[in-house]
Amino acid sequence: MRNIRIIIATVIMAVASVPAFAGKIVTEKIQSAILSAEVAYNVYLPDGYSSENHYPVIYLLHGLSDDYRAWDIKGNMKLVADELMASGECVPAVIVMPNAGGPDTANMWNGYFNMPSWSYEDFFFNEFMPAVEAKLNAGGCKGQRAVMGLSMGGGGSTVYCQRHPECFSSCYAMSAWLDNDKDNVRPHKDKDKLYYVTKAVCERSALAFVENADEATVAQLRTVKWFFDCGDDDFLFDQSVRMHQLMRGKRVKSELRIRNGVHNWEYWHTALRMSLPFASRNFSGK
Amino acid sequence: MRNIRIIIATVIMAVASVPAFAGKIVTEKIQSAILSAEVAYNVYLPDGYSSENHYPVIYLLHGLSDDYRAWDIKGNMKLVADELMASGECVPAVIVMPNAGGPDTANMWNGYFNMPSWSYEDFFFNEFMPAVEAKLNAGGCKGQRAVMGLSMGGGGSTVYCQRHPECFSSCYAMSAWLDNDKDNVRPHKDKDKLYYVTKAVCERSALAFVENADEATVAQLRTVKWFFDCGDDDFLFDQSVRMHQLMRGKRVKSELRIRNGVHNWEYWHTALRMSLPFASRNFSGK
Amino acid sequence: MRNIRIIIATVIMAVASVPAFAGKIVTEKIQSAILSAEVAYNVYLPDGYSSENHYPVIYLLHGLSDDYRAWDIKGNMKLVADELMASGECVPAVIVMPNAGGPDTANMWNGYFNMPSWSYEDFFFNEFMPAVEAKLNAGGCKGQRAVMGLSMGGGGSTVYCQRHPECFSSCYAMSAWLDNDKDNVRPHKDKDKLYYVTKAVCERSALAFVENADEATVAQLRTVKWFFDCGDDDFLFDQSVRMHQLMRGKRVKSELRIRNGVHNWEYWHTALRMSLPFASRNFSGK
Amino acid sequence: MRNIRIIIATVIMAVASVPAFAGKIVTEKIQSAILSAEVAYNVYLPDGYSSENHYPVIYLLHGLSDDYRAWDIKGNMKLVADELMASGECVPAVIVMPNAGGPDTANMWNGYFNMPSWSYEDFFFNEFMPAVEAKLNAGGCKGQRAVMGLSMGGGGSTVYCQRHPECFSSCYAMSAWLDNDKDNVRPHKDKDKLYYVTKAVCERSALAFVENADEATVAQLRTVKWFFDCGDDDFLFDQSVRMHQLMRGKRVKSELRIRNGVHNWEYWHTALRMSLPFASRNFSGK
Repeated sequence: MRNIRIIIATVIMAVASVPAFAGKIVTEKIQSAILSAEVAYNVYLPDGYSSENHYPVIYLLHGLSDDYRAWDIKGNMKLVADELMASGECVPAVIVMPNAGGPDTANMWNGYFNMPSWSYEDFFFNEFMPAVEAKLNAGGCKGQRAVMGLSMGGGGSTVYCQRHPECFSSCYAMSAWLDNDKDNVRPHKDKDKLYYVTKAVCERSALAFVENADEATVAQLRTVKWFFDCGDDDFLFDQSVRMHQLMRGKRVKSELRIRNGVHNWEYWHTALRMSLPFASRNFSGK
Repeated sequence: MRNIRIIIATVIMAVASVPAFAGKIVTEKIQSAILSAEVAYNVYLPDGYSSENHYPVIYLLHGLSDDYRAWDIKGNMKLVADELMASGECVPAVIVMPNAGGPDTANMWNGYFNMPSWSYEDFFFNEFMPAVEAKLNAGGCKGQRAVMGLSMGGGGSTVYCQRHPECFSSCYAMSAWLDNDKDNVRPHKDKDKLYYVTKAVCERSALAFVENADEATVAQLRTVKWFFDCGDDDFLFDQSVRMHQLMRGKRVKSELRIRNGVHNWEYWHTALRMSLPFASRNFSGK
Repeated sequence: MRNIRIIIATVIMAVASVPAFAGKIVTEKIQSAILSAEVAYNVYLPDGYSSENHYPVIYLLHGLSDDYRAWDIKGNMKLVADELMASGECVPAVIVMPNAGGPDTANMWNGYFNMPSWSYEDFFFNEFMPAVEAKLNAGGCKGQRAVMGLSMGGGGSTVYCQRHPECFSSCYAMSAWLDNDKDNVRPHKDKDKLYYVTKAVCERSALAFVENADEATVAQLRTVKWFFDCGDDDFLFDQSVRMHQLMRGKRVKSELRIRNGVHNWEYWHTALRMSLPFASRNFSGK
Repeated sequence: MRNIRIIIATVIMAVASVPAFAGKIVTEKIQSAILSAEVAYNVYLPDGYSSENHYPVIYLLHGLSDDYRAWDIKGNMKLVADELMASGECVPAVIVMPNAGGPDTANMWNGYFNMPSWSYEDFFFNEFMPAVEAKLNAGGCKGQRAVMGLSMGGGGSTVYCQRHPECFSSCYAMSAWLDNDKDNVRPHKDKDKLYYVTKAVCERSALAFVENADEATVAQLRTVKWFFDCGDDDFLFDQSVRMHQLMRGKRVKSELRIRNGVHNWEYWHTALRMSLPFASRNFSGK
């Protein structure tokens, strides 16, 4: 196919222009010993990426009913990253989109936490993160690493930063799933993944974590920059608000934004315009 | 497939919530006598649409290398329309996305203007608009009708309002293709559609139209609300700026916004957040 | 003083420009029989205002430590109103800024509710509103009337709409003071105005009103468009959130925005960019 | 006067909150040998400022009819700076507001350029900047210094960066006065300051500077980050647009934003929300 846009530009007018910033998304795979499985992931590489240079890294987590491709296909994250890096609102960074399940893998465990026979959190910190960062010459320390995500991925981002505050400079949780009432754990009869996911979210309640945090833990929480962003009509609205109140109660600074919207891709797509600059300005050399 | 989102909502927590606003997009076809062809189009119907009720209509035009499906598939217009209508920033309206060509119809003329054997403008005003509005119980007069579009569709919107000011209450042109240098008309040898499109844009120059407008014409232009919106790094940047200057020179009020961006779907998607409220607030009963 | 701006414009370049939109603020007084006092107020009159024409009216309420001049002097409301009316984001409307006290009137009761010997709510609805609207040829019915305000004025706006839903088409409450814990009523010993104000806010709790609303009352609440807007670090944050949750529980649609900020004029000034369009688009002919 | 806000907060509810960020504005004076005059200026010191620590510095320039107090009094810059530094959108920085004239100094030369007997540019670079930065332990190098301003101050910012690119990491020009037609120089008869100011702007035309820049100069321009921001109805609109086009022609990257508005404080106040983060993210250690 002819590249019709170039033709138009050529035909219409000769324009001297600053070259465009165009990152690219590539799909990679890693063989995990911990999971005994091959795990796919997407990576956004900024314009002019070279493994000769070192980059900060952003982990961008998908939600329950999606997989590692969602931020690319449904979230159109590339165009936003291109624009914000072109204008300097986000520094050139590698954006890693890991896989924690997906609709077409019905029999595969998912979620970001350890479950019986599926120690995803161990995999993430002990295998995935080190391998990806070595391969891409990115991240490598708290100051050069951020995590963000939507819904289950917002919960995952929050819990990862709560339990590994030495790993991340910032956390941006969108429409986050931060807790699950014990009474609402999916009934066990199916032993399907919803049972395990809801059970894991109970056990890893991000709200309870803050509520129960002692002074030493609170001191650790203060080393991370926190941002919660949720739609005013989102069914998870109460959880983001509650988190902000709990953090305030412990005197841990957190940002909260309630914008117009529900639990959908329009909300998450527009959230990128705030989350990428937030991650960027909280990177440091350390 | 199980609707996993509902399951999550059910599993996680019982939330009393205001029902969501959800429009839908349907594809329709019209048999045109003027074009001797069947022409497809998409329609966004707002939540609760009923042909018993009357709605204002917005024509949303695609660009040169696309067709009537682009605003749905690439532009994700549904989520934005849903959100803005839910919050009242845009009144419930029918949004019609007509077809003026497309990449997979290589031998078909395209563009929004009349060409030899392809009198699209005649089709639009004499066949398409009356038929669609009657079928959908929408529009019907200047005060209940708006037009907007991107690139070639931004030019189309502008020219339609210039030449048919009695038809539209407002025009919102995104990254608009408003003129074509005569020297840059696509060489004739191919007799391909780019030759005819570029030639038509020359002949229908929206910039020349304003420059040459006499007082009676200017008075007509003032009956339309104008909005031009173009990225600071768009290759068509100069045209939107020039249009705003020409309109100012003729004392026709127009809005201009230059936001960060280039000629891409991120720009047009975010433009909808301004263009739909703009159309909405300029509707009237007349 | 020479008008230096005009000189500059003249000196620098000859520019053909669309005439600017410039409203003006005037101070008026009304003699109240109910209060046995003369009460001052400010009015923003849109560009070209004439009492020959009818206008919708917006009541814009100040907070506890201020008076009727605050929105002009500290809030710079004129520039925002001018801009939004010029661009059509807000229809030309009369904006009335009543007086409910002020720092330099230490011995005068204040607040928007009835108190012993100071029946302000009665004054507002029975004297002030009718007189102002007749004098200015504005408002006159629910569809042509909106109310908004900050802090104590946000609470006043909410309570006025709860108890007089037949009067207002919309309510926009900024950093609203919606409730007061009974245990925190200002001690009586001073019989100062803080005692009466805090007591009145207890008795007129906007949160309790929703919590206790029966179906008939809820049906009335649904006839008003509600918007709550509060900073994430505002000391009144919990109240706006709680209101949104209570409204959701009663299935009354309300908008909530939590933006970055605290209880200050930067927040309220920027709120005008949303509140004036919100009022405007919810006006109707009825 | 009692601090009524604290009383309210105390009375209403006990709220555990993260301490607020509150900078302060102080007025200083410097005795200039070059100007043979004492020159006042304002400084915004961020919350917790201590001369023990080093800070980046932002020069914030006023316009023709104002003086060093304008950004404080008319622009309310303190609240915006407080908010953006509290949320991390701008790093803690010292913001210096110099004096280049003012309405009540009718017989004093003004503007940012050298004039007969008033070598302001020499003063700025050789006396003011070194003295202020030493005193405040701020700036000290290109990477730690930014300049921004409105109207005449936008022109001043641009020209300072064009002629001293080794001094500033970024330039943000609001509604900038970038050029003056030779035919429109204020007639000489008065020998008033408008004559000298308009003449100086002719001679220091920022547009002509770019137009005439050779390759070595262009290379220097590329070491500065440029941002032009002007209202669509500003009488200086054409100049910002022309600058962006000229910079593009020389392949010097510049950002341009055209927002709704005219030449007024609403535009400049809201511009701070973009300009302070822009300066902040372009600071570096060098």
